[in-house]
Amino acid sequence: MRIDVLTLFPEMFTGFLSQSIIGKAIEKGAVQVNTVNFREYATNKHGTVDDYPYGGGGGMVLKPEPIFLAVEDLIAGQAVKPRIILMCPQGVPYTQRIAEQLAEEEHLIFICGHYEGYDERIRQHLVTDELSIGDYVLTGGELPAMVVMDSVIRLLPGVLGNEISAVTDSFSTGLLEHPHYTRPAEFRGWSVPDVLLSGHHGEIAKWRHRESLRRTWQRRPDLLQNRELSEQERAWLREWEEERGADSRQESDEA
Amino acid sequence: MRIDVLTLFPEMFTGFLSQSIIGKAIEKGAVQVNTVNFREYATNKHGTVDDYPYGGGGGMVLKPEPIFLAVEDLIAGQAVKPRIILMCPQGVPYTQRIAEQLAEEEHLIFICGHYEGYDERIRQHLVTDELSIGDYVLTGGELPAMVVMDSVIRLLPGVLGNEISAVTDSFSTGLLEHPHYTRPAEFRGWSVPDVLLSGHHGEIAKWRHRESLRRTWQRRPDLLQNRELSEQERAWLREWEEERGADSRQESDEA
Repeated sequence: MRIDVLTLFPEMFTGFLSQSIIGKAIEKGAVQVNTVNFREYATNKHGTVDDYPYGGGGGMVLKPEPIFLAVEDLIAGQAVKPRIILMCPQGVPYTQRIAEQLAEEEHLIFICGHYEGYDERIRQHLVTDELSIGDYVLTGGELPAMVVMDSVIRLLPGVLGNEISAVTDSFSTGLLEHPHYTRPAEFRGWSVPDVLLSGHHGEIAKWRHRESLRRTWQRRPDLLQNRELSEQERAWLREWEEERGADSRQESDEA
Repeated sequence: MRIDVLTLFPEMFTGFLSQSIIGKAIEKGAVQVNTVNFREYATNKHGTVDDYPYGGGGGMVLKPEPIFLAVEDLIAGQAVKPRIILMCPQGVPYTQRIAEQLAEEEHLIFICGHYEGYDERIRQHLVTDELSIGDYVLTGGELPAMVVMDSVIRLLPGVLGNEISAVTDSFSTGLLEHPHYTRPAEFRGWSVPDVLLSGHHGEIAKWRHRESLRRTWQRRPDLLQNRELSEQERAWLREWEEERGADSRQESDEA
C-alpha cells in the first residue's frame, strides 16, 4: 500500500511513523508513507495556502489551487485511482468496517487541514471520501489521519503477529473485550478470579464470553441492538435485567 | 494545566508536542506535558511490563505493579486529585462535552497501553475514567491520548485566538459547519455562490444557517434528534423532505 499525506505540519508525523508497529510495517515494506507539504504548491511566492472567507466571518479557508495541484502531482501518470480522503468533522463517522475497506486499496491520499476550513470546491470536485473520527473538535486533521492510517496499516498482511491480533479484535466480535488478568495472582489484596486459575478451558471460555457480554450491556448497550443473540446470551441478559430491576426497586423502597 | 502520559513509546509524542498550536501552548506555559516510560517502574531488572494472560489465549497483558508505581510517584505529596484516564476501546465514547469537562481540571494523567490488554485491577482500583475515541481498533493508546489532549488543550484560556476558535465550533452549535469559499471566485469553471459575493449580511447569514442545517440533515441526521428546531428550520426540513419524496417517486416511476 502507498499512502500520501498532504499537511502543513509534516513533522507531526515523525514519531508516529518511526515507532513500534507502524515503524516496523514501513521497514518491512508493507506500506510506503510519504508526507507532502502542500505549501510547496502555493501559486504565489509568499507560499499562501489560505485566505479570508467570502461572505466574511472569522477564520481562514484553505484555497483550492495548492491542494488540487499537490494531488494532481501525486497521481500523474498513474493508472490506479486512489481514495482521496478529507479529514473533517463533517465527514462520515469512521468505523472498523471502513478501516477494513480502506485496507483493500492500493493507494490512499489524506488531506489534513489545520484549524482552517476547506474551500468547498475541494470537497465537491477532488475528494472521494470525507471522514470524521468522532464528535469532538481538534486543532487539525493530522491526528485523525494518523488514527485512520494506524487502524488501516495494522490490517495489512504481515504487519501484526497472530498473538497481537488476537487481543485487539474488540469490534470484530461485536462485543467489548472481557477483563484480562496476569501475574501476580494477588496484588495488594486483589485476587484474580478463581476460574482463570482453574485450568478448565470450557469454564474459562464461558466466563470470558459472559463477562464480554456483561461489559457491553453495561457500557455500550447500543452495540447489542443489531446483534443476533444466542439462547445463552438472552438468558444472561434476563438475569442481569432482573438484578437491575431488583436493585432499583430496593432503592425506591428506601427512598 | 499539568498532563502526564504513561507510555512505552514516548517518542511518538515528540512531533505532536512541538508543532503548531500545541507547541505554542506549551511554550506559553498554558499547559505542561510530561511523558513517563513506565518500563522504568518495572519490578525486575529485565524491565518486564507485561505477561501472559491467566486462563490462556493469545496476546499479552500489562501488569499492575509498574503502572500503579508510576502513577503513585506522579501524585506523591500532591493535594489535587488528578483524573487518571485509561485509553481503551471499552471506554466511554469521547465527545466534545467530555473535552469541556476535562479542560476544567488541574491535572490529567493518561495511561496508554500498546496492543496489550490491561490487567483488570488497573481499571478497578487506579483509574478514574476510561475513554474511547471511536469504534475502531488501533495499535495503542498513544494516538487516542493525543486526540484527547489536543481537544482539551485548545480549550484552555489563551491557547486559541478568536479568529481560529470561530471556525472550529462545529459541535457547539449542534450543526455541522456550512460550506466555506475563498478566492478565486471562479476556479476551473466552478464558481462561488452569488450570495456570498453580494455583501448582504442578512442573506449571507441565512444562507449559512440553511446550508449548515442541510448538511447536518444529509450527513448526520442523528445530530438533529435532540435539537429544538425553530419555525424556519422546520420549514426548510419540510421542503427538503418533500424534494426527497418527489425524487424517489420519480425513480420508482422510471423503474
